[in-house]
Amino acid sequence: MAADLFLGADTGGTGVKYVITDLAGRVVHDGQIATDPTSGKRTMGRLAIEVAEKVCPKKGAGGPTFARLAGVGLACAGIVDVDSGELSRSPNLPGWENSNLKRILANEFADRPVAVANDVNGALYGEYVAGAGQGCRNLVMIALGTGVGGGVLVDGKLVVGRSSGAGEIGHMVLDPAGPACTCGGVGCLEAWAGGVAILKQARLLAKVELKDTALARLVAAKGDSLTVRDLADLAHEGDAACLALFTEVGHRLGHAVGNMLNLLDPDKVIIGGGVAQAGELIFGPCRRHAPTLVLSPGARNTPIVPAELGPLAAAVGAAALARAEVSRAGVTG
Amino acid sequence: MAADLFLGADTGGTGVKYVITDLAGRVVHDGQIATDPTSGKRTMGRLAIEVAEKVCPKKGAGGPTFARLAGVGLACAGIVDVDSGELSRSPNLPGWENSNLKRILANEFADRPVAVANDVNGALYGEYVAGAGQGCRNLVMIALGTGVGGGVLVDGKLVVGRSSGAGEIGHMVLDPAGPACTCGGVGCLEAWAGGVAILKQARLLAKVELKDTALARLVAAKGDSLTVRDLADLAHEGDAACLALFTEVGHRLGHAVGNMLNLLDPDKVIIGGGVAQAGELIFGPCRRHAPTLVLSPGARNTPIVPAELGPLAAAVGAAALARAEVSRAGVTG
Repeated sequence: MAADLFLGADTGGTGVKYVITDLAGRVVHDGQIATDPTSGKRTMGRLAIEVAEKVCPKKGAGGPTFARLAGVGLACAGIVDVDSGELSRSPNLPGWENSNLKRILANEFADRPVAVANDVNGALYGEYVAGAGQGCRNLVMIALGTGVGGGVLVDGKLVVGRSSGAGEIGHMVLDPAGPACTCGGVGCLEAWAGGVAILKQARLLAKVELKDTALARLVAAKGDSLTVRDLADLAHEGDAACLALFTEVGHRLGHAVGNMLNLLDPDKVIIGGGVAQAGELIFGPCRRHAPTLVLSPGARNTPIVPAELGPLAAAVGAAALARAEVSRAGVTG
Repeated sequence: MAADLFLGADTGGTGVKYVITDLAGRVVHDGQIATDPTSGKRTMGRLAIEVAEKVCPKKGAGGPTFARLAGVGLACAGIVDVDSGELSRSPNLPGWENSNLKRILANEFADRPVAVANDVNGALYGEYVAGAGQGCRNLVMIALGTGVGGGVLVDGKLVVGRSSGAGEIGHMVLDPAGPACTCGGVGCLEAWAGGVAILKQARLLAKVELKDTALARLVAAKGDSLTVRDLADLAHEGDAACLALFTEVGHRLGHAVGNMLNLLDPDKVIIGGGVAQAGELIFGPCRRHAPTLVLSPGARNTPIVPAELGPLAAAVGAAALARAEVSRAGVTG
């Protein structure tokens, strides 16, 4: 049986999304299992059983095999050492910290070749091979989720850094007098453009400045279940306070993007994550502000585009990283 | 006669510094000629005559030849397209703008293989092959001169960007409420850490806040000939106002460095340029501030080191780029 499939998985705090792709990168199967936040080993063990049963043929009395799997890729939130496989920090997966993802995957997947990455780098690589970054060799991605992550691709390769610390665009300090960030710093991009920051700002506006407004009523009605999407809906209805809030988010995002254009002059900047669903509310002010900061005339018109792959981006990217790992090992090893 | 030498030249507004290196990159000759700011062609023509006479053997009645030159590299201030060779913007060399450096060099140097780069990228590449960055594959350089330039090296290659606009670390906006920058923006690193900005700030302090101080006396005595070195000397004597000025410069530099560590997590950050001669006055506050902004624990202790090659860095780098170009062309072409 030829090894003609790649598994790509993306581990979040509650679920592991996965895809199986063929040799050309086409997704032939996708699914999701629950994450066990206390144990990477148990979670990957479950994933291995599901993948083997669903995709790989049973073989005699030995049960499911991984004969068709050419490689396995895993994207995981946190600081992942792509060489050693160590996960040194992962706030959403406390029980996984200080475990070795490569070793776990090799154990559970019968020593298939393994690639690991952090989740935003996985998503960036997915967009590179199959989404908004296709055809580009140099990309910057900013993922606006609960927090703000980022990734950098140079010459078709993810920039991971000396200590796997690269890509933390969410913690670029944009204003030393800015608001407090969850990281302990002040004025980081995340302190304006992360979901947590946006909800905090909306609640503050509702409480302090705008007591008898649509925003205040929305915040009171939704309570703890308030989402960025609720706020975007209100903005789309024309609510001035909500519009101003998203304009500020887009403007600060534009500041970060402008700095990235000055630093790396990439082919494209890709904006993803749930908050990016606010669309033009954020993209508009971002695209207006970013070019005003850019020195090189040619870098001012760099496309700033939404991510295309949605929630499966990191799983697709992880599968592609496994493909790249197998092909690299085939060439050099 | 074997082609066993490389020419590397670095064009400034007043002079062209050059080095000749052997196949191993060792400098076997260096020199300087005057720049003709009105014409790249005339300047390179003069350089060709000097180089041919000094280094290449005369051959019969044909005069000097370039038989021993394996390749030519040129670093030039401004926006240089490394592929086409076009120089699209160069404030110090107005007469050179919109000329094609590669074509000029090929004409003047008998169609020898040619590499071009902007001056800070040339200096970064020089530090990479022969200076503070030796042994590293991933570097960030910040050059504190009259203005502030920068460069990024990833996996042993200069990041030039889609439109040759990468590396403009001097125009990273650090504070939207910061001082005006020469680029027309506000709050760029250059607006604090460039030589022009430092002198401006010193004159402001002398005039407005500190009338009867050592700084005010220095500024009055030196007039238009005041230099950053004069200010550094006064700071080294313990002058509080000058110390505070350099501390602010170093702190803002640390902000930019911290952002770069979050973005790229390089092996080292190299600080060069004349202003960096202020040494610990700037490096101290920079090294204290930068790590406080960095999310990844491993990236907090990244070495922040002075450049080592001095004024010849860009010429040495240009010769090395020519070497790399010849070896690349030999492999792929």
